[in-house]
Amino acid sequence: MSWIRNAWYVGATSAEVGDAPLGRRLLGERMVFFRDAQGRVQAVEDFCPHRGAALSLGRVCKGELVCGYHGLAMGGDGVTRSMPGQRVGAFPRIQRFAVEERYGFVWVWAGEADGADTSAIPVLEWHGNPAWAYGGGLYHIKADYRLMIDNLMDLTHETYVHATSIGQEEIDETPCTTRREGATVVTSRFMERIDAPPFWRDALAAIGVPEDTKVDRWQICRFSPPSHVLIEVGVAVAGLGGVDAPDDQKAYSIVTDFITPEADGSMWYFWGMARRFRPQDAALTERIRDGQGRIFAEDMAVLEHQQRNLDDFAQRKLLKLNIDAGGVQSRRMIDELLAKEACAQVV
Amino acid sequence: MSWIRNAWYVGATSAEVGDAPLGRRLLGERMVFFRDAQGRVQAVEDFCPHRGAALSLGRVCKGELVCGYHGLAMGGDGVTRSMPGQRVGAFPRIQRFAVEERYGFVWVWAGEADGADTSAIPVLEWHGNPAWAYGGGLYHIKADYRLMIDNLMDLTHETYVHATSIGQEEIDETPCTTRREGATVVTSRFMERIDAPPFWRDALAAIGVPEDTKVDRWQICRFSPPSHVLIEVGVAVAGLGGVDAPDDQKAYSIVTDFITPEADGSMWYFWGMARRFRPQDAALTERIRDGQGRIFAEDMAVLEHQQRNLDDFAQRKLLKLNIDAGGVQSRRMIDELLAKEACAQVV
Amino acid sequence: MSWIRNAWYVGATSAEVGDAPLGRRLLGERMVFFRDAQGRVQAVEDFCPHRGAALSLGRVCKGELVCGYHGLAMGGDGVTRSMPGQRVGAFPRIQRFAVEERYGFVWVWAGEADGADTSAIPVLEWHGNPAWAYGGGLYHIKADYRLMIDNLMDLTHETYVHATSIGQEEIDETPCTTRREGATVVTSRFMERIDAPPFWRDALAAIGVPEDTKVDRWQICRFSPPSHVLIEVGVAVAGLGGVDAPDDQKAYSIVTDFITPEADGSMWYFWGMARRFRPQDAALTERIRDGQGRIFAEDMAVLEHQQRNLDDFAQRKLLKLNIDAGGVQSRRMIDELLAKEACAQVV
Repeated sequence: MSWIRNAWYVGATSAEVGDAPLGRRLLGERMVFFRDAQGRVQAVEDFCPHRGAALSLGRVCKGELVCGYHGLAMGGDGVTRSMPGQRVGAFPRIQRFAVEERYGFVWVWAGEADGADTSAIPVLEWHGNPAWAYGGGLYHIKADYRLMIDNLMDLTHETYVHATSIGQEEIDETPCTTRREGATVVTSRFMERIDAPPFWRDALAAIGVPEDTKVDRWQICRFSPPSHVLIEVGVAVAGLGGVDAPDDQKAYSIVTDFITPEADGSMWYFWGMARRFRPQDAALTERIRDGQGRIFAEDMAVLEHQQRNLDDFAQRKLLKLNIDAGGVQSRRMIDELLAKEACAQVV
Repeated sequence: MSWIRNAWYVGATSAEVGDAPLGRRLLGERMVFFRDAQGRVQAVEDFCPHRGAALSLGRVCKGELVCGYHGLAMGGDGVTRSMPGQRVGAFPRIQRFAVEERYGFVWVWAGEADGADTSAIPVLEWHGNPAWAYGGGLYHIKADYRLMIDNLMDLTHETYVHATSIGQEEIDETPCTTRREGATVVTSRFMERIDAPPFWRDALAAIGVPEDTKVDRWQICRFSPPSHVLIEVGVAVAGLGGVDAPDDQKAYSIVTDFITPEADGSMWYFWGMARRFRPQDAALTERIRDGQGRIFAEDMAVLEHQQRNLDDFAQRKLLKLNIDAGGVQSRRMIDELLAKEACAQVV
Repeated sequence: MSWIRNAWYVGATSAEVGDAPLGRRLLGERMVFFRDAQGRVQAVEDFCPHRGAALSLGRVCKGELVCGYHGLAMGGDGVTRSMPGQRVGAFPRIQRFAVEERYGFVWVWAGEADGADTSAIPVLEWHGNPAWAYGGGLYHIKADYRLMIDNLMDLTHETYVHATSIGQEEIDETPCTTRREGATVVTSRFMERIDAPPFWRDALAAIGVPEDTKVDRWQICRFSPPSHVLIEVGVAVAGLGGVDAPDDQKAYSIVTDFITPEADGSMWYFWGMARRFRPQDAALTERIRDGQGRIFAEDMAVLEHQQRNLDDFAQRKLLKLNIDAGGVQSRRMIDELLAKEACAQVV
């Protein structure tokens, strides 16, 4: 296993777990999510203890997950509640997974359910805050989840992968700096007095600033284990302090990336953008979401081909340049935590 | 190999073997079916002894199977008849399979062709009998053939998988009994004075009984080796003797299931229904066939997911409840026969 | 590896390598083709030495191949030219492949680039010659490349695979002769005073000869290593000398087949036809190309099924008949060359 176990990952969005159960392969397990009688999300193995049917093909009835084959009713604790005509007391338990719904996401603890600690779920300040708007989506990508961390912790790729939207030459020309801040790796780049690329010109227009205004632009990428990357991005009218400029003179957003291994070699990628300008403008939210969806789809092709190459040329050593420092240090942090978990298991 | 060899399986319907050859993977072999000069169905390996081309891509000419690559003409005995410009006397034989066309099906003997005994083909009384009508179809399913036997020998699943057509709560509430009768396993359930579910309401209408009449309903499932399941099903006006009620007061059918392993982990499923009410009504036959096709397609998804789960969770033990007795006893009978065949091979 | 290394194969058509790079798996390698500043085609591994991205997803800029991920610029010699913000002197080289553009094709040397000898590229006399017209296409086929050589060096299959276009019974009835001429295997068949099949009737019409004229027909197949097959085909008004008849009394063509292994078990098949009648008739070129494309697609299905059979029945020995002599001798020539290369490697 190549991912940290004592940690929370995003397993689904709240909206995905509605009246019907949701089956999803995640963290090497086949899971099924459903809502109990109190509306709380529960997750158990997607395996009926009767004959092995997929519980996700069933339905939710009074907060229990009813198998679509013979009607076994499963509780969120992995204990069978009932089955028509049967005594279920001796039925074997199935595995439950610790889950917590928060900020519009269903968080899944990758380790033993009993060890789950909800205080470790990151705080997403924008959720439910009227000063912010959020839109996002989900992609399934056939590549190791760490390739996405590399991707996000080095935004020089924007110039090439996203040339027509957020890329611009000044990204290449401006060095980035990478540092570790406690349990976070931070890579930042500040570009001053430049033209805004198309995506940001639209944002400027949205806040009433002429599109051709010279801007200061920032990218502050923060990786935190197990595999979350939050990126402060934006532009401000040049010379007003950049990311610290007054709110009406800047377009400030956070790109949100929650990356969850499906199994070795593939991932679920929950992407989104939280913005702090014109939050009530739902049409803008939708437009940004569409644009981001298109931009991030460009990354999918790159990463899947890269993964195929890494499999085919397994013995090749990759370069670790200064621009790769963000990814390299993030992976180092993951490796340290994996080593720590491996030690703990030996004891 | 996980199937009985000294037995007949359905390999194709008569209609499938027309003027053109039919290639089909079956019982772990690649077979090709075609009709000889007398119109009799023959089956040989789908492998031209010349260069290995697939004979099924060829054509039938004067009762011989002519390879579509270089014109080798193959007989139903696996002996090459001729080839343009060649002497074929020394050409190697290919394997022939014992086949017998009967009751609208092409039956294939899974063992050595010389050991085939046509008297072992089950008698299908409805075929060619004007008192009966028959309609059916074929599905390819990626699951072990015995999962379908389990499915059919326990019809409590109807309540859940087929909730909108033939399922009803009374199935769950009525215990079934399972017994062995010679070389047959019988599971039966009798429900008295109930409302008919949608499928059977239509049948009642067809025989001129008001749809909301209280009925007695029966399900008598009979497994016989190697993997045939025939199920007497129907409803009668309540209190007239159920399955023994007078013909004009009941809708009586047999669900026919001939299940043939393709190879380990997949099957061909020949399903159908023979009915003894309104046999001349071709539109009804078609309507029933469509409905049954839809109902049985619901089972496919369940079984394919179940198979995937059984592969993924290979070490898990499944439960064997009273409702599973039909499947469990059918599998036991298969296992006994497999053991017997294994012994015979040692001797 | 099952192909000759010290030899040229067709890797692409000239038209395929335009402004954008072309990625293609070929000869067991992932290659990317592009044009340098002089317009010359270059080929290197499709693997960016920075992080393993596929260079073929990038773009060509001033004759360098610019990686679409982070902008590394690669030269045709496998040496990194530049990368924004980086010193690239110590970057590892990637493999380059010797390529030569000639006759509308990009030829690739399968062995060490330094050993490539462009004088070994076959001469294609029709290219750029106004007396000839050429049209062709490309198929990807999941079968060993030698099955295509077998196919082309024995045209008796036309009677069966291509019954409605170029096949006719006289092919079967007329023996072929096979001989080795230096480094070429030649299989030829001459049919005299026959009716032309549909494809050739059209050709006769094109040269102003009544379609029902009796013709002499020829097929002269020439295999030369590593895997090229050129086939002189055509018809002439009967009794005028066949292939040697005056030009206005015959339709003379060369079927061109350049077959390149993709990897073990699959191939790229560059097919075409060069003709020496009505060369200026572009509509005829197009019509012939369409027809040939349809005819050769019939071979694809045959070969892919044959390959599947050869995999499934791996232990079976195939027959080697007189009609197979062309393929058998071609394979023998390949085997001799492979043995010679194996020896050379040991030394």
